[in-house]
Amino acid sequence: MNSLGRIFRISIWGESHGYGVGALIDGCPAGLELSAEELQRDLDRRRSGAPGTTPRREPDRPRILSGLFNGRTTGAPILLAITNQDVDSKDYEAKRWTPRPGHADFVAEKKYGGHHDYRGSGHFSGRLTAGLVMAGAVARKLIRPVMVSARLDEVGGFPQIEEAVQDAVDRGDSIGGIVRCHAINLPAGLGEPFFDSVESLISHAVFSIPAIKGVEFGSGFRLARMKGSEANDIIVGADGTTATNHAGGVNGGITNGNELVFRAVVKPTSSIPQEQQTVDLRTGERTVLRVEGRHDACIALRMPVVVEAVTAVVLADLMRIAGVIPPVLTG
Amino acid sequence: MNSLGRIFRISIWGESHGYGVGALIDGCPAGLELSAEELQRDLDRRRSGAPGTTPRREPDRPRILSGLFNGRTTGAPILLAITNQDVDSKDYEAKRWTPRPGHADFVAEKKYGGHHDYRGSGHFSGRLTAGLVMAGAVARKLIRPVMVSARLDEVGGFPQIEEAVQDAVDRGDSIGGIVRCHAINLPAGLGEPFFDSVESLISHAVFSIPAIKGVEFGSGFRLARMKGSEANDIIVGADGTTATNHAGGVNGGITNGNELVFRAVVKPTSSIPQEQQTVDLRTGERTVLRVEGRHDACIALRMPVVVEAVTAVVLADLMRIAGVIPPVLTG
Amino acid sequence: MNSLGRIFRISIWGESHGYGVGALIDGCPAGLELSAEELQRDLDRRRSGAPGTTPRREPDRPRILSGLFNGRTTGAPILLAITNQDVDSKDYEAKRWTPRPGHADFVAEKKYGGHHDYRGSGHFSGRLTAGLVMAGAVARKLIRPVMVSARLDEVGGFPQIEEAVQDAVDRGDSIGGIVRCHAINLPAGLGEPFFDSVESLISHAVFSIPAIKGVEFGSGFRLARMKGSEANDIIVGADGTTATNHAGGVNGGITNGNELVFRAVVKPTSSIPQEQQTVDLRTGERTVLRVEGRHDACIALRMPVVVEAVTAVVLADLMRIAGVIPPVLTG
Amino acid sequence: MNSLGRIFRISIWGESHGYGVGALIDGCPAGLELSAEELQRDLDRRRSGAPGTTPRREPDRPRILSGLFNGRTTGAPILLAITNQDVDSKDYEAKRWTPRPGHADFVAEKKYGGHHDYRGSGHFSGRLTAGLVMAGAVARKLIRPVMVSARLDEVGGFPQIEEAVQDAVDRGDSIGGIVRCHAINLPAGLGEPFFDSVESLISHAVFSIPAIKGVEFGSGFRLARMKGSEANDIIVGADGTTATNHAGGVNGGITNGNELVFRAVVKPTSSIPQEQQTVDLRTGERTVLRVEGRHDACIALRMPVVVEAVTAVVLADLMRIAGVIPPVLTG
Repeated sequence: MNSLGRIFRISIWGESHGYGVGALIDGCPAGLELSAEELQRDLDRRRSGAPGTTPRREPDRPRILSGLFNGRTTGAPILLAITNQDVDSKDYEAKRWTPRPGHADFVAEKKYGGHHDYRGSGHFSGRLTAGLVMAGAVARKLIRPVMVSARLDEVGGFPQIEEAVQDAVDRGDSIGGIVRCHAINLPAGLGEPFFDSVESLISHAVFSIPAIKGVEFGSGFRLARMKGSEANDIIVGADGTTATNHAGGVNGGITNGNELVFRAVVKPTSSIPQEQQTVDLRTGERTVLRVEGRHDACIALRMPVVVEAVTAVVLADLMRIAGVIPPVLTG
Repeated sequence: MNSLGRIFRISIWGESHGYGVGALIDGCPAGLELSAEELQRDLDRRRSGAPGTTPRREPDRPRILSGLFNGRTTGAPILLAITNQDVDSKDYEAKRWTPRPGHADFVAEKKYGGHHDYRGSGHFSGRLTAGLVMAGAVARKLIRPVMVSARLDEVGGFPQIEEAVQDAVDRGDSIGGIVRCHAINLPAGLGEPFFDSVESLISHAVFSIPAIKGVEFGSGFRLARMKGSEANDIIVGADGTTATNHAGGVNGGITNGNELVFRAVVKPTSSIPQEQQTVDLRTGERTVLRVEGRHDACIALRMPVVVEAVTAVVLADLMRIAGVIPPVLTG
Repeated sequence: MNSLGRIFRISIWGESHGYGVGALIDGCPAGLELSAEELQRDLDRRRSGAPGTTPRREPDRPRILSGLFNGRTTGAPILLAITNQDVDSKDYEAKRWTPRPGHADFVAEKKYGGHHDYRGSGHFSGRLTAGLVMAGAVARKLIRPVMVSARLDEVGGFPQIEEAVQDAVDRGDSIGGIVRCHAINLPAGLGEPFFDSVESLISHAVFSIPAIKGVEFGSGFRLARMKGSEANDIIVGADGTTATNHAGGVNGGITNGNELVFRAVVKPTSSIPQEQQTVDLRTGERTVLRVEGRHDACIALRMPVVVEAVTAVVLADLMRIAGVIPPVLTG
Repeated sequence: MNSLGRIFRISIWGESHGYGVGALIDGCPAGLELSAEELQRDLDRRRSGAPGTTPRREPDRPRILSGLFNGRTTGAPILLAITNQDVDSKDYEAKRWTPRPGHADFVAEKKYGGHHDYRGSGHFSGRLTAGLVMAGAVARKLIRPVMVSARLDEVGGFPQIEEAVQDAVDRGDSIGGIVRCHAINLPAGLGEPFFDSVESLISHAVFSIPAIKGVEFGSGFRLARMKGSEANDIIVGADGTTATNHAGGVNGGITNGNELVFRAVVKPTSSIPQEQQTVDLRTGERTVLRVEGRHDACIALRMPVVVEAVTAVVLADLMRIAGVIPPVLTG
């Protein structure tokens, strides 16, 4: 449903064209220094502006509406919010009955019986990830000295990212990419078998991000073509240090103290300027649509900070469960 | 932790060399016809025997110890069990301090402070998947007419599976593979955004299976290299039927009524007959070990039914939540 | 933690003297007609104003910040908020180290390491129940035709409520009471054994309301003195109708189709104008304190609507789980 | 549903006349010394034998089927089981359509569409509490030095328990009682507002025990008749020690370090030898029934250890969440 985590738990709320978007955090320890400015930094990394990102310009000023007192968390729930400013809803009503290929339009109509907020994709909008980023900024502070960082590995198969994006823009098309995420300074022992393996929890969170269609840890799909003698990471230290890291820092669903590494694939944005075929849901007839509005040609460009955010949230929860992070922070 | 699901929920218990292994199912509707024989069929598909699988031979006779009356489920929890028979624990104590590369030995020692049952990998054993298979057999009946089927796509990169496995056996090595899973007859509308997308829940479950290191839906990682104009599945019917299925049957985290398709990569078995380097945890010195015992050269061979099982479990839960499966079955 | 429910699930946020208070609802079906005005009605029943209630005057204007579109719920999370207006925080800093007897001051200091928001009791304030009332107003609409109503049975042992309250006010004291709650038109079969009996879930919710110290169903504590031949409710109809209702409408943890009846005791408000003994936490010395600020002499007066609210929330969840309320409302 | 707890979590399984009954424990720390003999002690306290208890005689030999190795818990799930021996199912089929007043017969038929195991009340049987007691015995060891103890306060309103019970037996009737439970050596700070107050969690667990109809903390329902000046527990030590304990050791839903005290009312057993009126569900006609089989005249006699058990389970979970009990026990 709409919450993630067992002890450090986040819920997401909001719509693209409604009042705003945000997150509610439960289970954050008391005593964590926190300010809206710190959330701003991560939000700024998520914002549009570069070529290939949407022309919608949102100031994205975060507010902390509860759970903070004298500059520190209190242990009570933390409500995070940003309001929507640059909203243009005029295109959506007209397009409502011709679902965009590759988009959530059709399933939203089906699942919610026509009651969903279809303006700007409503609760399905990529804008919801701003709530993830805010929650992630809190989690990121909490899990120190663990550091999570993600970057784009490739776009459209090319490491020359700007050129690949520009090419897609020029063609009136969109393009996918791959995000690589690392976490260092992790203690060995995180992960709760049988079902709450580190891979299970991270993939659960990452797959909740719109447009993610695959997640692999360590050498991932390349492991299918490897022998055990190649894939096994030789242990070279009594602290579990391995010579290679095909496992991506996870054995048996549990962190082994090496770097956590995973990759996630971002599909090309489904909203493209080109004319596309679809069906009119009222008549069942095939028709064509042209998606107007403002969209990212390469949503992958804005993804690394979102992937970092959900990873930090999952690690915060696992570190709370394992007792690595106490219920109250001191000093 | 050790349970999965919100309404139709399973828990796993057992160890490789203890009393046995099994599952406890909560939230199964009353009135489902069920017999131990039906569990047997799926268990048989998981059993060893083919070249490349372990010489350990377990009869795997399933028992239904609660929740069944007059051949039907009662609505009460269903306890499923098989006992261990062909147990040989003599090798393990000696090897305890030299963790096998690629295995859970090191993390289990760390996480459980030396208290874990290290015989045959204890609770980390692939044998635990027998519990998944039994629970999956129940779920599979429940979700009809939805049908879940999985098969091996490749082993070591080759579709000639027997040859590839035999080659690994001959080299005293192991080999990975890729499982492809399909579900048909799914209703549109399953999946509970924001965090409980179909992809989130299925990947959560699939990554809990030992040896899985990657999961991708539809065209998965290939989407990174596609344009939106290629990746978007054109809608050709008012029921949501699409001309292609790059999305794997899921948009916005919700089933769209097309076939659900995903692939999971199985790493090569970490236990191989070859000599491997590791560290003696008592001294910190590097040493070599030779893994004895009985192991699969290609655990991927036994995986399809396990992947089907967890997929059926997740779908059963989603269909319960969506009200597609009622709390009591009639007729 | 800070959420309640499995499918229809609410979370509470806010502080007495912060930005505001509210609730986040997850799992509300799409298609429910809803307006802020409807929340207002229940909030007004909770407001102060009568003799024996606090002189703090809050307008309590509810806002629905997400999950609503065209006057109906969308199926997305519903964020409910009211802002705080009539805040006077000056007394609290001085009193911080002398915990009020009967209050949460001491435990909050201990549990949150001094980081809690102590102004007006922060997250422990009775004001948080405004969030419950708003969520309850939504649940109440959802569960129709089930009707939940509560009233004060007694205050200080007397059915003459106004006189009893006035007497307490005159003495500079406070006074407790008993709330009786009924729900009618309930279907038989709600409740999820073993652990989620109707009594378990309702008592869980009701005991989360500040000041509640006891909950009993049907004839409750009087059953200790009854014989089985008296206590057993004779069944007089094939629909389960009983001649008496000592069970309060619940057998085996499951609704039996008769009226659900329970009572909850509200302790006297712990904040009283009289001088009271306590300890200075800095020195360990005993001292006296006089609680200033604005408090209810009989918080029980404002409780019925709060008890109704959490009851409706629990019933909404149970009716969702049982499939009585579908995921999408039509018509 | 069928599980209780967030980190230390138990599930219950079994039927009165099936294979057996038991519990599955998840989240128990590794390293706890445990043996079946220790479970036996608590089970023996629950067994029948005294006047007023059922003539059904079960040896109740507990087995620990997983999660134990070398006499200590491993951190893996712990499956606890006892088999049923003294089963006599002949009476039940005949009585199936004439639900016993005060019993779960009617609701079970309704809720499970006639598929429930009606022999000996199936999953609704008081025998299921043997699973609670076994899980409680584990929790009890885990929470040391916290000690939980319960006793019968009264039976039928009389502290002369044996006489009161004998009187009920002589009349062919049954009788209720009140159990008082204490926990000492509790740290201050347990309980997780807003919804997981200590009172919420304990009442949730206690109300899941068959026949419990009311729960009150500290002075409970007597608080309705007290003034604040009487009910407030004066704080006399900087450690939170109070002069009185009307709050039962809980303020604001959080333990305050004083003794935890609550009382629970046990209704008279609904199965009594006297002839009672009911309805034939097949015809809708009123009829009379005489409950045969073997039943307790005063089930309250066997309740104290059950109430202790669920209390210990709840406290174990809260102490895990608060970090008071670590994930691995040492020494």
